[in-house]
Amino acid sequence: MNIAILGFGTVGTGVYKIIKKANRLTQNLHVKHVLIRKNKKPDLPEMTDSYEEILNDKDLDVVVEVIGGIEPAHQYILEALKHKKHVITANKAVIARYMDEFTKVAAENGVKFYFESSVGGGIPWIQGLERALRVDDVNKIQGIFNGTSNFILDQMKRSGETFNDVLLKAQALGYAEADPSADIDGLDVANKLCISCDIAYDYFVKPTAELPIFGIRNITEDDIAHFSKKGYTVKLMGKSHQRGDEFDYVVEPTLYHGDTLEANTCDNYNLISLHGETIGNLKFMGQGAGQLPTANAVIQDILDIFQNKEHLKRGFKSKLKYRSDLTRSNYIVRSEIDCAHLFAKFNPCTRGDYLMVQQIPVGEMHRLMRKVLEKDETAFMASLPGKEGESA
Amino acid sequence: MNIAILGFGTVGTGVYKIIKKANRLTQNLHVKHVLIRKNKKPDLPEMTDSYEEILNDKDLDVVVEVIGGIEPAHQYILEALKHKKHVITANKAVIARYMDEFTKVAAENGVKFYFESSVGGGIPWIQGLERALRVDDVNKIQGIFNGTSNFILDQMKRSGETFNDVLLKAQALGYAEADPSADIDGLDVANKLCISCDIAYDYFVKPTAELPIFGIRNITEDDIAHFSKKGYTVKLMGKSHQRGDEFDYVVEPTLYHGDTLEANTCDNYNLISLHGETIGNLKFMGQGAGQLPTANAVIQDILDIFQNKEHLKRGFKSKLKYRSDLTRSNYIVRSEIDCAHLFAKFNPCTRGDYLMVQQIPVGEMHRLMRKVLEKDETAFMASLPGKEGESA
Repeated sequence: MNIAILGFGTVGTGVYKIIKKANRLTQNLHVKHVLIRKNKKPDLPEMTDSYEEILNDKDLDVVVEVIGGIEPAHQYILEALKHKKHVITANKAVIARYMDEFTKVAAENGVKFYFESSVGGGIPWIQGLERALRVDDVNKIQGIFNGTSNFILDQMKRSGETFNDVLLKAQALGYAEADPSADIDGLDVANKLCISCDIAYDYFVKPTAELPIFGIRNITEDDIAHFSKKGYTVKLMGKSHQRGDEFDYVVEPTLYHGDTLEANTCDNYNLISLHGETIGNLKFMGQGAGQLPTANAVIQDILDIFQNKEHLKRGFKSKLKYRSDLTRSNYIVRSEIDCAHLFAKFNPCTRGDYLMVQQIPVGEMHRLMRKVLEKDETAFMASLPGKEGESA
Repeated sequence: MNIAILGFGTVGTGVYKIIKKANRLTQNLHVKHVLIRKNKKPDLPEMTDSYEEILNDKDLDVVVEVIGGIEPAHQYILEALKHKKHVITANKAVIARYMDEFTKVAAENGVKFYFESSVGGGIPWIQGLERALRVDDVNKIQGIFNGTSNFILDQMKRSGETFNDVLLKAQALGYAEADPSADIDGLDVANKLCISCDIAYDYFVKPTAELPIFGIRNITEDDIAHFSKKGYTVKLMGKSHQRGDEFDYVVEPTLYHGDTLEANTCDNYNLISLHGETIGNLKFMGQGAGQLPTANAVIQDILDIFQNKEHLKRGFKSKLKYRSDLTRSNYIVRSEIDCAHLFAKFNPCTRGDYLMVQQIPVGEMHRLMRKVLEKDETAFMASLPGKEGESA
């Protein structure tokens, strides 16, 4: 199989490395082109800065898009599909935004659009989810979907250091980007949860500013110490529940008891779970990012195409409806302003520096918290576990 | 697809239930026969006590063997394969013993022999392992492979009760059988680890009495309390490592720090892990037993045949060699006899009621422990975690 890699950053280089170190199966894969930026000097014979050349190569089977970002990735993927090339991408932002368009154009052109590496890195999450869906409806998804934020929270807990000190450390180690907002504001988790819901519910969940998303930018070393004292570890979670013909969706810091797998998922690891009627709870833990684990997942998609292993078909014709207030939860809020009146309907009670809000619909909580943030941009909140350490 | 279910116990009934509750995919599955014991009264129209009738049904595609035990399951599977029926089984004992024969006969007859449900119940472990092997050599497998023993250890830790009291409770709940030896003496774990190694190394590991296997029959409430005081949780593990052209294999109680996923795998859950060069650590947690999770895994195999998704091919022609002493580990030993002299080469030192043995080859430890058991049949041992909570 002939492959073109668009972009030769961390993941692109990893894909190239694994293919070059051929084994029994991967020896059938051949990197024919590597697309680099215009006017950049090629230092490998496969490199070119002409996407036209790649698109018009009649012997090319698969385009691997690992440039990242929205444009030109979006146009590159569409053009490849229209030229009847299979497309594999690790780019969660562009998939979350254009999943419906990519799925449609791939089907029209009789080619595959696969994206295992986009969620959970090396964890076979998309594959595991699609497999579960062959037998069960999946009625719960929850996950530590972002390694950078998990590393920051884990380090803060271990060292007692401030958010900013740990963020600087994560940036020095290459775990966090110069602009860390996608990781710490929950946007990366949001994209991965959108992709997971798209598959689980066969419903296109467009990532918009209206979705309830709350990140960890405002967490302090005192918050972490307080949670620890109470036996909790805080994790940035993406969560979705389905009940009847409705589903919800939320990204938020969530407290877990010390004896849960979530609380003990350390460093930059990911842990992603699903629940189905017959399968029960199923959890996958592994490297959610990093060169080789992510490249491994790209290679798995290439091999699925090579071995003709079809992924689940989606039509986005589900009759489920999104409802932000499907689930209720308890929350702990920290703010310098007195905001108890905002939550008056939900039995607010003060506990030291914190306010406890009880059995509030999740969407309502996020709407009210936006009001708190307008007056106190340092405010923080986290949801508390329900029965069995879960917030449902 | 037409299916025959051999045996209508817990798992057989579960398979029947899931197929009857048809969804988009499983509506293509049709239970045509259910084999029951000779002279047992049929209470479903599909029931028959004639295996001949099933074998000679030209429209039958798949035989699901869920009788359990070695014979007649072994002969039934061989006959089905020779009649060119695909075979799916949940029977780990018969697979572990005859994996090479079943694989060969299935290939000769151009049919599939699939067994996802035999290891880890509903966890997609076989599938995950085979998938990882497409890209990586797998150089470590370790798992909580047995739900019954995990339930017993978890309950003992939570309640402080004796082994026997908790075993009785497990039997009352249906988690443990009247004869619990396969679960508590590590034989069930041994079979599942054999199957996992067969796949990982393409080497047929025959389950024999020579393999290093040590169960939890002798553990006391005082042992558990002692480990807890030191911050450890004990788990019955199956473990294998591969290094160069050698691999090892061991089933033994193992101590884990409280902040590991292993220590926090509760109730009757399973947690199975692999390590590969590019994928890193990958862990799968779920229901390792139970009617619907196990039946779910049987259905997944049926759907793989229906959707023509080929599993990994095995020839058992690997050049790896089994070596019982490939890995060294530290152990804690409790015995009423003074056995320090037996372990003299491995820096034995007394710690209260326990003896610590250091950096001893795993096979050697098990050989010496058999000598201890000859004089003190109540003796117990557990391996201690190495770096990163692992015994390698």
